Amino acid sequence: MPAQSSPKLGVLGGMGPLATVDFLAKLVAATPASRDEEHIPVVVWSVPQIPERVPAIAGDGPSPLPAMLEGLCALRDCGATLAAIACNTAHHWHHALAEASGLTLLHIAEAAGEALAARVAPGSRVSVLATRGTHQAGFYGPRLARHRLEPLPFDPDLQARSLDPAIRAVKAGHLDAARAHAREALARERGRGAQAVLLACTELPLAFAGLDSHGLAVVDATEALAQACVRHWRKDPPSAGPGTPPGGERG
Amino acid sequence: MPAQSSPKLGVLGGMGPLATVDFLAKLVAATPASRDEEHIPVVVWSVPQIPERVPAIAGDGPSPLPAMLEGLCALRDCGATLAAIACNTAHHWHHALAEASGLTLLHIAEAAGEALAARVAPGSRVSVLATRGTHQAGFYGPRLARHRLEPLPFDPDLQARSLDPAIRAVKAGHLDAARAHAREALARERGRGAQAVLLACTELPLAFAGLDSHGLAVVDATEALAQACVRHWRKDPPSAGPGTPPGGERG
Repeated sequence: MPAQSSPKLGVLGGMGPLATVDFLAKLVAATPASRDEEHIPVVVWSVPQIPERVPAIAGDGPSPLPAMLEGLCALRDCGATLAAIACNTAHHWHHALAEASGLTLLHIAEAAGEALAARVAPGSRVSVLATRGTHQAGFYGPRLARHRLEPLPFDPDLQARSLDPAIRAVKAGHLDAARAHAREALARERGRGAQAVLLACTELPLAFAGLDSHGLAVVDATEALAQACVRHWRKDPPSAGPGTPPGGERG
Repeated sequence: MPAQSSPKLGVLGGMGPLATVDFLAKLVAATPASRDEEHIPVVVWSVPQIPERVPAIAGDGPSPLPAMLEGLCALRDCGATLAAIACNTAHHWHHALAEASGLTLLHIAEAAGEALAARVAPGSRVSVLATRGTHQAGFYGPRLARHRLEPLPFDPDLQARSLDPAIRAVKAGHLDAARAHAREALARERGRGAQAVLLACTELPLAFAGLDSHGLAVVDATEALAQACVRHWRKDPPSAGPGTPPGGERG
């Protein structure tokens, strides 16, 4: 791509493909626009042939970092100045990816923490529903603590019985099965005294869509990231982004 | 991007953004996959800041060809070998885009014609619901004739009263309003003796989703294109695609 390509939002996806589509749908929905041209220009790298994130975080498999960096650099070469990753677990490598790509790379846990803080009072107990990798990586803890939110302790039984199967079911396109697991998870977390549930894996909003939360606040990290992208894009003129050379114009 | 980037499906979208998401969702749904890695690697250029297609076809505005070609070339540089355009009207420039990009560029009207032929008998009367630009461009006619399908004549009143407003409403995110126009269009085309309705504008499936067609066969060109992408990707080993140098491997 020519270096003077117009600024865009880059989306690193593919982890998984349906979750990426869900993020893009939420990006369109979050954008105040009445015509095509008012929407954010977006380039998407949705390449699911990438080492799995959860085993890599557990030290049990190859790192997905080179493949993710390849994607972000390709997006940057397409003109992306601002970027987002449509996968929570992948944020384990957020710092390295932002450093190496030079992109303004939003963080899904920052966005989700802010969205939670806007919905529930400080001191609220939050059930963080995520992959084992996201729990192990630990990047949600400090971002909830900043808003004085209290994550419930990790529950290995909930993970094995409801969340891992729900995530797998979404990746296999079995949304009805995923929904049944999601319903179990909601009941269990209500029983543990949660006041809010954070869907901190991009597969989970697809499993939880349309479920009755029986009064629990349910915050969708995917939606929070999409809204953060729109806020950032509108606030910070993208022509000043790091990927655009001075005087860069639409090719 | 390095020239040895692994083969991908390129999607030229942004015309409009929600229609692009709908195409991507249909691509995921059309793919037989139980795990992320079994999905097609995709790169998407969804940049809606592009001259409008309908006025350009009417000779009343700048050509979108350079901007579309910029997108396709960027997708090619990201490793796309096979590509699709998530917009019917844009297929007015299909031949020029395929020639200039060197990509294997599927044609939405080919895919839709085949999908129609699989649903209705030769000789069936088909209502082609599309933009004025698609009607004017005329690329659906020969592709329906090949299957001995008979398009109903263009109805300017239907276009002005139902289809143009439905398309505009989807682009503005007003799906309820779009649905009301879609319902009117279905009733009118039934009254004109249609045996099938072809949704030949990528906004229209969003307007027609969930409507009762009262026995009319409704064929969705977006879905047909997504299915054609999956068939082509699986049939034709992408490593032999035009964008991949001999011996090219994942970078």
